[in-house]
Amino acid sequence: MQSNIGSKDSAGSFLKRDREVVTPLGDGGHNTYVKVSAPGTVANLVCGFDILGLCLNEPHDIMEVQLLDEKKIIIHSADGYPLPLDPAQNTAGAPLIEMINELGGNIGFEVTIHKKIKPGSGIGSSAASAAGAVVAANYLLGNVFSKTDLVRFAMFGEKVASGVKHADNIAPCIYGGITLIRSIHPLDIVVIPVPELYVTVVHPQIEVRTKDARQILRKEVLLKDAIKQWGNIAGLVAGFMKNDLDLVGRSLEDVIIEPVRSILIPGFDEVKRRCKEAGALGGGISGSGPSLFMLSKKEATAIQVENVMKEIYERIGLAYHSYVTTINMEGVKVLTD
Amino acid sequence: MQSNIGSKDSAGSFLKRDREVVTPLGDGGHNTYVKVSAPGTVANLVCGFDILGLCLNEPHDIMEVQLLDEKKIIIHSADGYPLPLDPAQNTAGAPLIEMINELGGNIGFEVTIHKKIKPGSGIGSSAASAAGAVVAANYLLGNVFSKTDLVRFAMFGEKVASGVKHADNIAPCIYGGITLIRSIHPLDIVVIPVPELYVTVVHPQIEVRTKDARQILRKEVLLKDAIKQWGNIAGLVAGFMKNDLDLVGRSLEDVIIEPVRSILIPGFDEVKRRCKEAGALGGGISGSGPSLFMLSKKEATAIQVENVMKEIYERIGLAYHSYVTTINMEGVKVLTD
Repeated sequence: MQSNIGSKDSAGSFLKRDREVVTPLGDGGHNTYVKVSAPGTVANLVCGFDILGLCLNEPHDIMEVQLLDEKKIIIHSADGYPLPLDPAQNTAGAPLIEMINELGGNIGFEVTIHKKIKPGSGIGSSAASAAGAVVAANYLLGNVFSKTDLVRFAMFGEKVASGVKHADNIAPCIYGGITLIRSIHPLDIVVIPVPELYVTVVHPQIEVRTKDARQILRKEVLLKDAIKQWGNIAGLVAGFMKNDLDLVGRSLEDVIIEPVRSILIPGFDEVKRRCKEAGALGGGISGSGPSLFMLSKKEATAIQVENVMKEIYERIGLAYHSYVTTINMEGVKVLTD
Repeated sequence: MQSNIGSKDSAGSFLKRDREVVTPLGDGGHNTYVKVSAPGTVANLVCGFDILGLCLNEPHDIMEVQLLDEKKIIIHSADGYPLPLDPAQNTAGAPLIEMINELGGNIGFEVTIHKKIKPGSGIGSSAASAAGAVVAANYLLGNVFSKTDLVRFAMFGEKVASGVKHADNIAPCIYGGITLIRSIHPLDIVVIPVPELYVTVVHPQIEVRTKDARQILRKEVLLKDAIKQWGNIAGLVAGFMKNDLDLVGRSLEDVIIEPVRSILIPGFDEVKRRCKEAGALGGGISGSGPSLFMLSKKEATAIQVENVMKEIYERIGLAYHSYVTTINMEGVKVLTD
């Protein structure tokens, strides 16, 4: 499916004008095709609701992007997932429309998405498509946009996906590591230096819609709970930056969102309790769920934590998918020139 | 005035038993008299309500403490301030009572307070008395207690002063620098590495009682405001630790407490706006006020900021006291052996 998003065609192709006008800031800019990997991400990080996110090494989507010389976006889904192929409704397409409109000129992109991050799993599937698309497009344009610009564009993909322009999956997907979104208006992203950690993820195969997960939250919270939460957030950031993993563990406590949302996820309390008993520093709901994540200091612990998760969901009788991965420090990665 | 806080006198003096039983962890332990300086502190640090505090180099109280060999606390006020001299009602006395009760044995302290930090000014006058007393007492006992223990004892002084056992003045007063109180129960204090900064303080001579300042706060806050606040707290901690002073400045924003409390302080809005125009990174109410503080990168800016404060309160016609100081990295300091 394809969609023509502009009506005015100016003379000459964009590519020609691009070479005359735009100074490439990095690699790319002379290529018309690129392949990128776009990783999964864990938003919220327990106490950091709406402000913190972490980039995963696995899973990741593969995206192929071709530069076009007309104002057009074409989306292909290379997998069985029923992604909307209308660019304006697609999480990769919507950000590219914004990017093209801001640039002006006759450019377009043909995007093929090899979706490996299951939509609705809670580890940033929509963000990966949005972030991968804008990083790839920017590469082909000679990296004319900053990372902050790319986050700004990519958030239009999140709006398509969940109705809200949030950046707590987008930012870590583009920057890598752990990112703080201090503010959305104006956009203020801070990369948090982060120690080596292992991440165990389990995806119980139930559906939790982001809109539902957002709707069940109360609009008001107790000041005393908010104070506890911001103490934990400050502790978590300090723990990451001081490489004080015990402090990270103590700070991974959410007194506001988790008590409400965890009721949507069967087995939550047992998973959390027993994973911590097995040595995990802590963890909780990934994004708005249903995936759960746990952080561990050592790989052996992370594997033991995975075994606990498996044992619980096998006993409950709920299909699940689990894996152990690490923190991705790069974010979206260009795979070919 | 003096008060006997124990009835059972065991045989032999504590001092003798102390030398036999307690292993001194540092200096002190062989002295029966010590003089300490106990500095002022700025609690809350704008967005860090109830969890962050900063230690000042000026002003500071001087406290003299004498070890006694009977279970007794004696408080002297060496200045004109009408401090309660009943130990149980005195911010230095109450923590010492707790310390003595926990230790057991026949010990006591005679405390002389030279109060330089004006009570009610909002820069931790009560915390300085409490922290100074426990650090001095611990020194005389051979440093048998950890800093966390000392904070725990000193919080009894805050309870006497304001009815609430908070640690956001006590912790920075004992540890120095900027401290995070991640949690009160259990007590979890994190020292935040901090860059060189200049602090300008103005104390408009009005009374804001801590109890009143606490009472006017709403018990519930909007989740969206809480999210903004914890984004700022995370940004502030990251800014201090990355030595990113512009991030510190952007994060010094309080959307929850300041809009309510600032109405108690004449001139607040103008002071804040014009001090930032004069180059301050940001600032706000110190503790529950009425003192206001501003952080600056450079001494020259901090002096200019002070001039702005002076100009405003002179025009308003409100008596004030202002000064420029720096961050105290040591906290309570032992002055003599």
